[in-house]
Amino acid sequence: MTPEERAAACVAHMLAEDDASRALGMTVEATAPGSARVSLDVTRAMANGFGICHGGIIFTLADSAFAFACNTYDELSVAAAASIEFLKSANVGDRLTATAQERQRGKRSSVYDVSVTNAAGEEVAVFRGRSASLGRPLLPRGS
Amino acid sequence: MTPEERAAACVAHMLAEDDASRALGMTVEATAPGSARVSLDVTRAMANGFGICHGGIIFTLADSAFAFACNTYDELSVAAAASIEFLKSANVGDRLTATAQERQRGKRSSVYDVSVTNAAGEEVAVFRGRSASLGRPLLPRGS
Amino acid sequence: MTPEERAAACVAHMLAEDDASRALGMTVEATAPGSARVSLDVTRAMANGFGICHGGIIFTLADSAFAFACNTYDELSVAAAASIEFLKSANVGDRLTATAQERQRGKRSSVYDVSVTNAAGEEVAVFRGRSASLGRPLLPRGS
Amino acid sequence: MTPEERAAACVAHMLAEDDASRALGMTVEATAPGSARVSLDVTRAMANGFGICHGGIIFTLADSAFAFACNTYDELSVAAAASIEFLKSANVGDRLTATAQERQRGKRSSVYDVSVTNAAGEEVAVFRGRSASLGRPLLPRGS
Repeated sequence: MTPEERAAACVAHMLAEDDASRALGMTVEATAPGSARVSLDVTRAMANGFGICHGGIIFTLADSAFAFACNTYDELSVAAAASIEFLKSANVGDRLTATAQERQRGKRSSVYDVSVTNAAGEEVAVFRGRSASLGRPLLPRGS
Repeated sequence: MTPEERAAACVAHMLAEDDASRALGMTVEATAPGSARVSLDVTRAMANGFGICHGGIIFTLADSAFAFACNTYDELSVAAAASIEFLKSANVGDRLTATAQERQRGKRSSVYDVSVTNAAGEEVAVFRGRSASLGRPLLPRGS
Repeated sequence: MTPEERAAACVAHMLAEDDASRALGMTVEATAPGSARVSLDVTRAMANGFGICHGGIIFTLADSAFAFACNTYDELSVAAAASIEFLKSANVGDRLTATAQERQRGKRSSVYDVSVTNAAGEEVAVFRGRSASLGRPLLPRGS
Repeated sequence: MTPEERAAACVAHMLAEDDASRALGMTVEATAPGSARVSLDVTRAMANGFGICHGGIIFTLADSAFAFACNTYDELSVAAAASIEFLKSANVGDRLTATAQERQRGKRSSVYDVSVTNAAGEEVAVFRGRSASLGRPLLPRGS
């Protein structure tokens, strides 16, 4: 497998099991070693008490993009911490895209930046996540 | 209204509109000025690619508790930023409780701490959020 | 004044008063509206208990670059919050450069990203800061 | 050695080498397994461009308390990341105290909370740090 094929295989494997991301209607649009781009449409069921997209949904989209990106090397990694700045509200009907990009790759811990934009290209949130590598492969043997 | 009654009225008003929190099955267990406690049961639809509760769901629970707590004074407030440390994984079937407590209340910006625990009382995540006040009441006139 | 001249005047005004930045030997290398680049040499007095540059010094350098950058519009702004990821240790003798860039400019609150690099161009830390505008000019009248 | 003696020995060992903390006049007031309390007096040389204590100094005090606290088990640990919320400004002449407390201790990564207060007991900043254990002792053999 090329690194690009491995990245795609890892994300496909995760997505197949990821009920939460699929339940929210996320679509993986692109993958590469250390990066992933994921989209979702904001539905009425994602609105908070103010009628705008719940910040938790924006975080979840960014967190999924981060999780996919940090697992593209076939080294099982989990989120240790994350922070998010909410820059602009998102509305029901908006299509949001989260682009996760590796900022630093360490042996045991790595840092990823995620930008969440709307269809007009405006930045809705910026997210930074730290992953911890568990030191074993993600893909089942024989994949 | 007493401050406690106002806090309860604000949270009830928000929850009635908060499709996202209700869609996830969140229950508001307690409110007071500057604080809120919210629970949810982790369902299979909340599992991520590793079969454990998606970090975004844990964040969303904490973020809802934060949003309720920072709106208990009937001053409309929104989340500006938040950070989360994931301390322990949560499993399908776990009941998670997020307790949000005001750390500092400013005129325009406030800080809240949220602790997310499981039924055994173990801390699953710690969350810190910063809210921005919009300078107008939350409750409709006449409430 | 052009925006570039205003940015330079604001930073010069701040630096003249900023004993802490000058005591650490910081040099402002560049300014523009919404950005600033600041350097310092890591001295023995900046080493921590492990003989490497104290993380607080790296933070302080980044925080100064952030403070300069968010005050380049002649609107008095202060730091409300910041986070830092330490990516690589810095040694006594290293020259560190912090480059602060506006990520989003709001009416009352703005977000800045800062990258701290060593002379080899390696990223030592990434920093994200949120500023609060106090709603009055930075420069004294007549400037 | 009791755990309390070990904590004190670790912090004494670090402080002896920690030129940065000593250069700023920090005093270690208390140590225990997983915690440390450190103070400093804000001097004119710590003032920023607005004549108040530079946020970097407040961070550095909190970061030192965190570094001491996370090394009290004689397991060498370094800061991986930290975030700070600035709640109240500190002035030249103020005595600041940072109290670091373990929030969660993991095998490879731990979380600490630090509160920075002034002499009136007002909270100046809250800090949260994540440490990484390097898997070897802090104290030299024979200590």
